[in-house]
Amino acid sequence: MKIKVGIIGATGYTGNELLRLLMRHPKVEINALSSHSFEGKMYSEVYQNYTQLCETVLVSEDEAIEKSEVVFACLSSGLSEKIAGKCLGKKKLFIDLGSDLRLSDREEYKQWYGLDFINEQVHANAVYCIPELNRRKLTEIASAKTTGLIANPGCYPTAAALALAPLIDGATPMIDLNTIIIDAKSGVTGAGRTPSSATHFPELNEGLSAYKVAEHRHTPEIEQTLSGLAGRKVRVVFVPHLLPINRGILTTVYANALDTDLSGIRNIFADYYKNSGFVRILKSGVTANLKSVKYSNYCDISLHFDVRTNRVIIMSVIDNMIKGAAGQAIQNMNIALGLPENAGLDYIPPSF
Amino acid sequence: MKIKVGIIGATGYTGNELLRLLMRHPKVEINALSSHSFEGKMYSEVYQNYTQLCETVLVSEDEAIEKSEVVFACLSSGLSEKIAGKCLGKKKLFIDLGSDLRLSDREEYKQWYGLDFINEQVHANAVYCIPELNRRKLTEIASAKTTGLIANPGCYPTAAALALAPLIDGATPMIDLNTIIIDAKSGVTGAGRTPSSATHFPELNEGLSAYKVAEHRHTPEIEQTLSGLAGRKVRVVFVPHLLPINRGILTTVYANALDTDLSGIRNIFADYYKNSGFVRILKSGVTANLKSVKYSNYCDISLHFDVRTNRVIIMSVIDNMIKGAAGQAIQNMNIALGLPENAGLDYIPPSF
Amino acid sequence: MKIKVGIIGATGYTGNELLRLLMRHPKVEINALSSHSFEGKMYSEVYQNYTQLCETVLVSEDEAIEKSEVVFACLSSGLSEKIAGKCLGKKKLFIDLGSDLRLSDREEYKQWYGLDFINEQVHANAVYCIPELNRRKLTEIASAKTTGLIANPGCYPTAAALALAPLIDGATPMIDLNTIIIDAKSGVTGAGRTPSSATHFPELNEGLSAYKVAEHRHTPEIEQTLSGLAGRKVRVVFVPHLLPINRGILTTVYANALDTDLSGIRNIFADYYKNSGFVRILKSGVTANLKSVKYSNYCDISLHFDVRTNRVIIMSVIDNMIKGAAGQAIQNMNIALGLPENAGLDYIPPSF
Amino acid sequence: MKIKVGIIGATGYTGNELLRLLMRHPKVEINALSSHSFEGKMYSEVYQNYTQLCETVLVSEDEAIEKSEVVFACLSSGLSEKIAGKCLGKKKLFIDLGSDLRLSDREEYKQWYGLDFINEQVHANAVYCIPELNRRKLTEIASAKTTGLIANPGCYPTAAALALAPLIDGATPMIDLNTIIIDAKSGVTGAGRTPSSATHFPELNEGLSAYKVAEHRHTPEIEQTLSGLAGRKVRVVFVPHLLPINRGILTTVYANALDTDLSGIRNIFADYYKNSGFVRILKSGVTANLKSVKYSNYCDISLHFDVRTNRVIIMSVIDNMIKGAAGQAIQNMNIALGLPENAGLDYIPPSF
Repeated sequence: MKIKVGIIGATGYTGNELLRLLMRHPKVEINALSSHSFEGKMYSEVYQNYTQLCETVLVSEDEAIEKSEVVFACLSSGLSEKIAGKCLGKKKLFIDLGSDLRLSDREEYKQWYGLDFINEQVHANAVYCIPELNRRKLTEIASAKTTGLIANPGCYPTAAALALAPLIDGATPMIDLNTIIIDAKSGVTGAGRTPSSATHFPELNEGLSAYKVAEHRHTPEIEQTLSGLAGRKVRVVFVPHLLPINRGILTTVYANALDTDLSGIRNIFADYYKNSGFVRILKSGVTANLKSVKYSNYCDISLHFDVRTNRVIIMSVIDNMIKGAAGQAIQNMNIALGLPENAGLDYIPPSF
Repeated sequence: MKIKVGIIGATGYTGNELLRLLMRHPKVEINALSSHSFEGKMYSEVYQNYTQLCETVLVSEDEAIEKSEVVFACLSSGLSEKIAGKCLGKKKLFIDLGSDLRLSDREEYKQWYGLDFINEQVHANAVYCIPELNRRKLTEIASAKTTGLIANPGCYPTAAALALAPLIDGATPMIDLNTIIIDAKSGVTGAGRTPSSATHFPELNEGLSAYKVAEHRHTPEIEQTLSGLAGRKVRVVFVPHLLPINRGILTTVYANALDTDLSGIRNIFADYYKNSGFVRILKSGVTANLKSVKYSNYCDISLHFDVRTNRVIIMSVIDNMIKGAAGQAIQNMNIALGLPENAGLDYIPPSF
Repeated sequence: MKIKVGIIGATGYTGNELLRLLMRHPKVEINALSSHSFEGKMYSEVYQNYTQLCETVLVSEDEAIEKSEVVFACLSSGLSEKIAGKCLGKKKLFIDLGSDLRLSDREEYKQWYGLDFINEQVHANAVYCIPELNRRKLTEIASAKTTGLIANPGCYPTAAALALAPLIDGATPMIDLNTIIIDAKSGVTGAGRTPSSATHFPELNEGLSAYKVAEHRHTPEIEQTLSGLAGRKVRVVFVPHLLPINRGILTTVYANALDTDLSGIRNIFADYYKNSGFVRILKSGVTANLKSVKYSNYCDISLHFDVRTNRVIIMSVIDNMIKGAAGQAIQNMNIALGLPENAGLDYIPPSF
Repeated sequence: MKIKVGIIGATGYTGNELLRLLMRHPKVEINALSSHSFEGKMYSEVYQNYTQLCETVLVSEDEAIEKSEVVFACLSSGLSEKIAGKCLGKKKLFIDLGSDLRLSDREEYKQWYGLDFINEQVHANAVYCIPELNRRKLTEIASAKTTGLIANPGCYPTAAALALAPLIDGATPMIDLNTIIIDAKSGVTGAGRTPSSATHFPELNEGLSAYKVAEHRHTPEIEQTLSGLAGRKVRVVFVPHLLPINRGILTTVYANALDTDLSGIRNIFADYYKNSGFVRILKSGVTANLKSVKYSNYCDISLHFDVRTNRVIIMSVIDNMIKGAAGQAIQNMNIALGLPENAGLDYIPPSF
């Protein structure tokens, strides 16, 4: 029997992509789609490409929760904590693609989001999961057959953490933790569906600029993951740039090597991710290309070393809407439900 | 002494491009820029690329009229007729880049724009000018040293009329006037500066669709010009498409040839435009490319003949913001003031 | 047991896309990939996105035929007739994504391709199939459990024929067959994998032009299909344009209506394609958008009528690499093998 | 009387852009264009956009030198040293847009270019000039009315040096010189006119990747400039990325601040460039955008400080073809000839 799932906020870009993937997931059945803005309309009236494919009528948030065993929320900051609370009460698996449950430190949350924890029980129960780094937390949910609140990571934090984890996980980091610089470049879908001057076609097309320089909200989330792995507080410089393309993130990560013998670095990465089918460590001489992972759940990583300056340079690429959002949410669900990790996610990235 | 000009609606895309060109026009001096939305702000606060280049403070419409000998208006439908009236009263040369003065037939204006002529005197005095086709009307203004109201043509009507004029001007058209089909493709700047779902980057990028199929407001304007040239009512099918690029229009025009000997067609075009330096008739075997005219005031035309079906196929390309708007407005001004036609317009289209 | 398939010319763009789709087809197993240029290399060395997904070594053409029950060829003009001959001899199902078997008229083939039929038996046995129009030919192959040579249609001919078929199939066409104009716009992948000046990024990007105006080789193929449906020779004007995007074709088709009452046209199309799940007739007021079918096997069609000129305007959109090539080839295979028509093709077009 | 100039290598992208700018330069007259590949052809046969604008016939290298007082060379590595030698002999002003004369250290040249200095006299006489940093060297040429060999800087080195110079010029650098990281992103025109797999439209479009990670030939050129300013050897990490757009470079530069009081940094930059009209220091809160300088000779710089990590982050943007190549070459010529620095370069960057 298929698992009944619902999507709250189904008409945003993240919800849209989640719907597309879940509709072809072999083990689930979509029981409800909700939308604040389009309640009462058919999904295909909102997105023409869904003509004849999804003519479901959009319902309210509460109806979506009621009808589902697994609830996904794809909402703006501040809107999903309440839903998490309801799901906790009703013992449903809740997966939040928004940012409400990602930071465990209340002070950091206040500082970066300007919001507070309202329902502390929710935060106490939430687990933040990049499956490749936190698989155990998910298998615990699976084996306890318990309900759970899963905080799905942000797009930039996923790409950055996967690029750095093998070098800092454990007692002896291979890089100087004070020297990490993350220069990230993202496609426009990350900015969501709402039109604005900044995303108006002629303003973006053929252009490039950074934004929220060293003050993007994903900064504390990246630091939380890296600090957890390193066992001490790690600070990073994080600068995101907006690319005039639809999808994908490339992060270029720089750090000072602690040991000049980095000959083994590729093996360390390969070993670290040996059970992680969605991470591909590229061969020496190959550079990660955003194109190679688009429309898939893969994260490609290429490793470079500048012997002149003793710097490690790591490139990681993901599709921000899949591994950086909807795909990773499904991957989290799969593990938490004891399904094969790649169920519904075995897409081959197209070459063009 | 330089001519004092003002731009009303200077912060829209058309006004912006007009400003850029006028700032380097050797014979004019920009005395006032007005904007309804940004009055009181500096121009460079609205457009970052104008930093240190235009730090003029935006003023009101009336102040702009007062300070200028030549007034350009770059406004939405229905907003410029009143300004035209004021300029007529104050004996200023008024050039309207909007659509209010383009149609001379009141009924057609009502039907396509849903608006009426309020100030009939304005419409009685307005002259619609594509310089290559209506140069005489402009030289009359110049020689009479009179004030004037010039209706600057729309972008699509410019490209379409230049492609067809040589074949239909005069007593014996070379094509069957009942068979004209105009398939046009335009860059996004034609849609203006206001963000919308339709111009949100991810919605447009890597896509293509037609819009306002056979019901675009430029249809009667095209027909007005062609009918004037042919001396009888001409109807056309006009279908515009929105390209995921910033600038440029390509029109592909189809019509049945009346005479199968079209060997002389290239000469006819070359002769027709022999005094029109901005129209370039391409050599046999060459196809008009939108890229070749971008950032310039040129209109390139290529001529093709399908002997199998006896159809003439004409391609014309222009930069919608220059020859299709701001550049043509300056060209109109130049002639009406007795200046060299290409003053301030001698840009070479970049290759990339 | 899965059907063994092989792809000849697997490293071109068409072969590449076919591979991607076949790798996730539930009923087939890929037994061989051949490539003239890259024989002996691993597939993932040619396309980085296939890292860890396809590390198969490329073999020769003959080895690919030997190992396969179904042979696909993705080759340039003139190269697949010989392979078709071999497959005919060995009683294998052969599906040609090239152009060698498409035209049944030897004189037209000579005229447009500058080539002749060498192996006449091949041409006598080849069936040209757009499944929506020629399903019966395929079910005959299926029921006879016979071998077969299938000529997979070109991308433009698919989009054009699907747009026009319902209006001309049968004794009484609804449009004047002498007035058909097909203005088509295609993404760059249609030009294939070989770099050239015309496909060099800065030459294409932000540009647009037509090419092979009224002399593209797909013209006789379109006419062959339309003539077959209409029962008389049909000639069309066909002008393709090259869009600065990767994928997709939009065709805008114009024709004079024979009957001014076109109120029923939408029903006629819906009825005509009622058993064709991949064709979606859009609702009144909706315009076909290339974006809505990308990465899928769908063909969306929108219908418009210009009452002022009595013209029918039909827009059809397909993904040139899927419904216009690899997807349609699989659809043809599925029917010819008695599999569900949409096996391996049930992709939902992404919204962005 | 106008100065006679010639361009060697006029049909490459750099030569093409130089031609476009020089054709509108008020003080020069183009006397000769040479091209190895297209000698004997008209320029407009090579570039369609030059139809009727440049129908000059391409000549040989020697003829171009003979006919010109100022010779520009736009050639690949290794091809311009010989021309420099000829110009030195004939006492002509030579401006090299290639890389042969850029590095003054013979060993570095060997190491990074795999080439040696053949004519040492050429290298002894060559002056490398970013006008904002080396104006004096140019005014010396001007006042001595001497001939000169000017090495025009590379695109990346220009953007990087302008971003860093004010912080390191002089005895007390404001940043730790061991911590400089330059993450650069460039449009495709930087790769030149020759088609390749890497610049084939579908391979690049909607993609992004780094290339020549920490091994690009512009690295020693950047270090040469920075070391010269700092008075000691400076090493940098330099990683270029290829953007799917035509023009422009954005560099994001990171370095550790030596002094936490960076409140004055904006004033330092403003002061440093107070006589440099093409450098615009953006206001606090504004981020440099590549779009704001395209088609102009400007370099915009925005300054950011990450107080959490004590890092200075500097963004600089230029048009790689203008300030990064042809425009800077003209700027160098202007100063060396005693002309106004911005002669022929006063273009306003278009907003779209």
